Amino acid sequence: MSPKSVLITGASRGLGFEFVKCILSQPSPPEILFATCRDPSSADALQALAKENDSLKILKMDVTKDSEIESAFEETQRTLEDKGLNLLINNAGIYDKSDSGSLETQTRERLQSHFETNVTAPVLTVKQFLPLLKRAAANNASLPMSYNRAAVVNVSSSMGSVQRTLEGSAYNGCHYRATKTALNMLTATMSSELKDCGILVAAIHPGWVKTDMGGQQAALDKSTSIENCWSVISSMKETSTGKMLSYDGSVMPW
Amino acid sequence: MSPKSVLITGASRGLGFEFVKCILSQPSPPEILFATCRDPSSADALQALAKENDSLKILKMDVTKDSEIESAFEETQRTLEDKGLNLLINNAGIYDKSDSGSLETQTRERLQSHFETNVTAPVLTVKQFLPLLKRAAANNASLPMSYNRAAVVNVSSSMGSVQRTLEGSAYNGCHYRATKTALNMLTATMSSELKDCGILVAAIHPGWVKTDMGGQQAALDKSTSIENCWSVISSMKETSTGKMLSYDGSVMPW
Ligand SMILES: NC(=O)c1ccc[n+]([C@@H]2O[C@H](COP(=O)([O-])OP(=O)(O)OC[C@H]3O[C@@H](n4cnc5c(N)ncnc54)[C@H](OP(=O)(O)O)[C@@H]3O)[C@@H](O)[C@H]2O)c1
Ligand SMILES: NC(=O)c1ccc[n+]([C@@H]2O[C@H](COP(=O)([O-])OP(=O)(O)OC[C@H]3O[C@@H](n4cnc5c(N)ncnc54)[C@H](OP(=O)(O)O)[C@@H]3O)[C@@H](O)[C@H]2O)c1
Repeated sequence: MSPKSVLITGASRGLGFEFVKCILSQPSPPEILFATCRDPSSADALQALAKENDSLKILKMDVTKDSEIESAFEETQRTLEDKGLNLLINNAGIYDKSDSGSLETQTRERLQSHFETNVTAPVLTVKQFLPLLKRAAANNASLPMSYNRAAVVNVSSSMGSVQRTLEGSAYNGCHYRATKTALNMLTATMSSELKDCGILVAAIHPGWVKTDMGGQQAALDKSTSIENCWSVISSMKETSTGKMLSYDGSVMPW
Repeated sequence: MSPKSVLITGASRGLGFEFVKCILSQPSPPEILFATCRDPSSADALQALAKENDSLKILKMDVTKDSEIESAFEETQRTLEDKGLNLLINNAGIYDKSDSGSLETQTRERLQSHFETNVTAPVLTVKQFLPLLKRAAANNASLPMSYNRAAVVNVSSSMGSVQRTLEGSAYNGCHYRATKTALNMLTATMSSELKDCGILVAAIHPGWVKTDMGGQQAALDKSTSIENCWSVISSMKETSTGKMLSYDGSVMPW
C-alpha cells in the first residue's frame, strides 16, 4: 500500500522525475502526488504525465525561495485539508562538476550556494510542511512508524559519508560532499526531534545514477535506482529513523 | 619543540585567546605567532600580550571577508618570506544560542551565516594559506608529518558527530551541529588532498568549555581545555591526519 499523499521536490528531471513515474506506476498509487519544480512551464515530461494522471499535481517551488516553499505549502494544505501529508521527499539538489571540486577550486559563492540548495532548503521545507506531516502522523496514530503514517526522506549520497570518503582517499567535489554530510546530520537531528510525534526521518543514497548530475558513465540507470529506492522507502520502520539507507537496503556509515 | 610559526583565527577571546596564551607559555615557543581577529583595535587583552611578546603579531581578519583573508595572507608571507607556515588553527566560529536551535527555530539567514563562518571560512583560509603551508612542508621534507612540518587544525565539536547526536537523541543547535559535521567532512577531504605534499589535517573537539559560547555551566575551564588540546596537537603524527581528535586524546566517531 502506497502512502495516501506524497510530495517531492526537484521533480522536473533526473531522479525526481523518475520517482514520480515509479510512484504513479505502483499497484495502489497515492491518492495525490505533488510534484514540485522550479519552472513548471518548461517541465514538459511532467506536464505530459499530469495530463494522464489526475492524482499528479504540479506545483511551482524553487527551494531557494522561502516565498515559493510557503505558497506550495498553502496550496498543498488547501488540497489535503485535514488529511495531512504522509511522505515528503527532499530530492532537489545541485552539484557543480565544472572542475574537480578540489580545495583549490573552491569559492565562497560556490560553497554557499551548494549549502543553500542541498541543506538549508530541505530543512526549511520540512519546517514549512511540519503541520501537515504532524497531522498525518496524528491521524494514523495506530500505525507503526512508516511512510503510511508520516515520513521525510532526504536524498543524500555516499559522497556525504566521511568514512567512505576517507576509505576512498577522495577529495573530488568537496563542496558537494560537505553539503550531504551536513544533510545527514540534519536527518539525525530531525529524526530525534520528530520521533515522539510519529514522524520517521531517513536519508537515502540512490547509488551512482545516469542523470544530468551523475553523468553517462554512472553505474545505474534511473529506473533501477529508483525502483530500489522506493522498495527501501516502503520498508522503512521505526528502526530506520535517523539512518542513511542505501538503495540496496544496507545502512551507510556516517 | 613548538612549530616555528603558527597562525590562529578568532583570537580576540575565548578559546582562540587561550590558545595564544598557552602557545606563548611553552618552554620553546614559536618564533612567530600570528593571532588574527576581526577587530584588533578592541582586542585589548591580545594587544596587552603583544606588548610583552615580540613574537606575537596581531592581524585583522574577519573570516567572512575574502579580502581580509587575502591581506592577512600577504602580510604573513612578507614576514615569513620563504620559511613557510607550520601550523594553521581554524578556531573562529559562531553559535547562535538565542533559542533551542530546534527545527522550528531555523531560518535561511541563520543556517547560511553559520555555514559561512564555520565551514566556508576555514576552507577558504586553508586555500589562501596553502602556498605557505606547502612551503613549510617542503622545507621540512625530512620530518615525519607533524605540527613541526606543516599542519592544519580545524576546531570542531562533538556536537558535529552524527553518531554522538543520535546516541544522545539530541537536536538542540541543529544549525551549529550541521556546520561542524560539514567541517569534519572537509577535514577529511583536505587530509586526503594534502597528504602527498606532507600537510597533516585534523579536527579537534576542545570539550565543553566555559567561554561566551560554552556558557558558565560548561564542564571545563579554558586553560584545562586548551592545555589538553595543545598536548594532543603536539602529538599529532601521520596516523592523525583525517581524524577528529578529542582534547582527551581519543578519536571521535563521525
Ligand atoms: N545522480 C547521482 O548519481 C546521485 C547520486 C547520489 C545522490 N544524488 C542526489 O539525488 C538528487 C537528484 O539528483 P539528480 O541526479 O536527479 O540530479 P539532476 O539530474 O541534476 O536533477 C536535479 C533536480 O533538482 C532540481 N533542482 C535544482 N535546484 C533546484 C531548486 N533551487 N529548486 C527546485 N529544484 C531544484 C532540478 O530542477 P531544474 O530542472 O529546475 O534544474 C532537477 O529537477 C540530488 O539531491 C542529488 O544530490 C544523485
Ligand atoms: N566553548 C565550547 O564549549 C566549544 C565546544 C566545542 C567547540 N567549540 C569551538 O571552539 C571555537 C572557539 O569557540 P569559543 O568557545 O572560544 O567561542 P567564543 O567565546 O564565542 O569566541 C568566538 C571567537 O570567534 C571569533 N569570530 C567569530 N566570528 C568571526 C569572524 N567572522 N571573523 C573572525 N573571528 C570571528 C570571535 O571574535 P569576536 O570577538 O570578533 O566576536 C571570538 O574570538 C569555535 O569554533 C567553537 O565552535 C567551542
